[in-house]
Amino acid sequence: MEPTANTQPILTRTSDAPIGIFDSGFGGLTVARDIAKKLPNESLIYLGDSARGPYGPRPLSEVDGFVQQIGSWLVSRGVKMIVIACNTATAAGLSHAQQTLPVPVIGVVEPGARAAAHATKNRRVGVIATKATVESDAYTKAIRHIDAGITVFSTATPRFVDIAEQGIKMAEGPIEEFTSLASKVYIRPAFQEIAQDYLDPLRRCEIDTLVLGCTHFPLLKALIGGVIGRDVTLISSAHETAIDVAEILARRGELASPDAVAHHEFNTTGTDIEGFERFGGRAFGHAIGQVNHVDLP
Amino acid sequence: MEPTANTQPILTRTSDAPIGIFDSGFGGLTVARDIAKKLPNESLIYLGDSARGPYGPRPLSEVDGFVQQIGSWLVSRGVKMIVIACNTATAAGLSHAQQTLPVPVIGVVEPGARAAAHATKNRRVGVIATKATVESDAYTKAIRHIDAGITVFSTATPRFVDIAEQGIKMAEGPIEEFTSLASKVYIRPAFQEIAQDYLDPLRRCEIDTLVLGCTHFPLLKALIGGVIGRDVTLISSAHETAIDVAEILARRGELASPDAVAHHEFNTTGTDIEGFERFGGRAFGHAIGQVNHVDLP
Repeated sequence: MEPTANTQPILTRTSDAPIGIFDSGFGGLTVARDIAKKLPNESLIYLGDSARGPYGPRPLSEVDGFVQQIGSWLVSRGVKMIVIACNTATAAGLSHAQQTLPVPVIGVVEPGARAAAHATKNRRVGVIATKATVESDAYTKAIRHIDAGITVFSTATPRFVDIAEQGIKMAEGPIEEFTSLASKVYIRPAFQEIAQDYLDPLRRCEIDTLVLGCTHFPLLKALIGGVIGRDVTLISSAHETAIDVAEILARRGELASPDAVAHHEFNTTGTDIEGFERFGGRAFGHAIGQVNHVDLP
Repeated sequence: MEPTANTQPILTRTSDAPIGIFDSGFGGLTVARDIAKKLPNESLIYLGDSARGPYGPRPLSEVDGFVQQIGSWLVSRGVKMIVIACNTATAAGLSHAQQTLPVPVIGVVEPGARAAAHATKNRRVGVIATKATVESDAYTKAIRHIDAGITVFSTATPRFVDIAEQGIKMAEGPIEEFTSLASKVYIRPAFQEIAQDYLDPLRRCEIDTLVLGCTHFPLLKALIGGVIGRDVTLISSAHETAIDVAEILARRGELASPDAVAHHEFNTTGTDIEGFERFGGRAFGHAIGQVNHVDLP
């Protein structure tokens, strides 16, 4: 009988401790939103690493260091589990964080991959993500780990990140059609052409399931769904990750008590506190109140 | 955009098609039992390959060939999905079967591993299985794919297979304590000593979760649970696999209609039809009726 990982410290945590969630900016608030919706009694501590985001252009080893640092900070804040609400950070640092941090750590790739593998009927799945995530092959590996017979078509849609961010900022103007009501993102007609350029090749691949493999993309669900067609099931990692968080806490007997009053705390490493509050509120689905500035050492 | 697996044929299947389940003998009927319990409207076609079982002592490549052959036979019988209800066959042939068969194929390792990874609080998980399964390292890999920080302690408990089979056969005699009511397995006092020899080292490893990594072991749940202690969560792959089957069919919109009348068909490649009926009925939880003999080419 051989142990196959180092012994982890055995900690006792109260079920009313908060869940830690972080991302390179405010995109991960779409994940926090789905967790808050599914688990209204859970307290959350969110950190957006806006000072160093986006992570995409950075070396994976550097991002791994950020994950370790932010993970340790969240543990020092007493969280009972950590959600890496960012695809690049998941690819760069999930496994290392699971080995070093004393609480469960989950990423956004595996939940979305599993949902897609279970949902597809014709076993043809599309994945849209940032260039870094597509190149890491993380979704293809995770989907084929579950069903080796699934054909995965991945394509990088980097401009969708801009479209989501522009759409959030422009939403102070008039909100017209192709607006996702939940997230109040404004979609210009030009955005639809970009979406068609990206998605038409995937349509021709006859996929029946499409993974939204970036935390920004749930903001564009209406746009993407309108272009790809109603016969394609859209898989949001945010939604699936929230389901996993609920299942893990339930199995561990660590769900917040039903009469717990949830406290949501929002932090950014950036200096534009006001912008984070304004745009973050749209990603989270309602006003996020006071945002704290945090300096990481 | 690159396809990363061969194109699968796109098939249309009615949701009232049966689920195919197979094992090297009647042990997989513990999985069939949990599927039938969770999905009472689903029809099942079960095949026990008793003529060639147990698979444990055979080369993995030979078992892979059996999986391909039985999988094709089940597809020819019109099943909508296939469950490999055997750990050795899952390790030997799951990935190949997923690539060649036109319906979803799942094994028993991944569901049990995921449940264990989600259930453990101190991140120390034990696995008991046959020698072949422990040596394949399949559970350790699958658990650490989900949480790289979990310490996995695996140990082969080959005599548990005999104990389960003897217990089933002896259950025609008096049924005393340590009897699992659902399965009516008779446990001799000597069996408890064997269980203590196997499980005491795992207790000392301070595991809080134990995977029953063989389809025979749910029959011994009362014995194993009594020895390992009530503070250790027992994970039955059978139960978790049934949950996965339900989730996959629900997501694919392929659950049997609520007014469907389930038909359970039992087949064996062996010649002892009467024995299969008698002992199989105990593993399945109630009489399985007529068993057919099947000759595979």
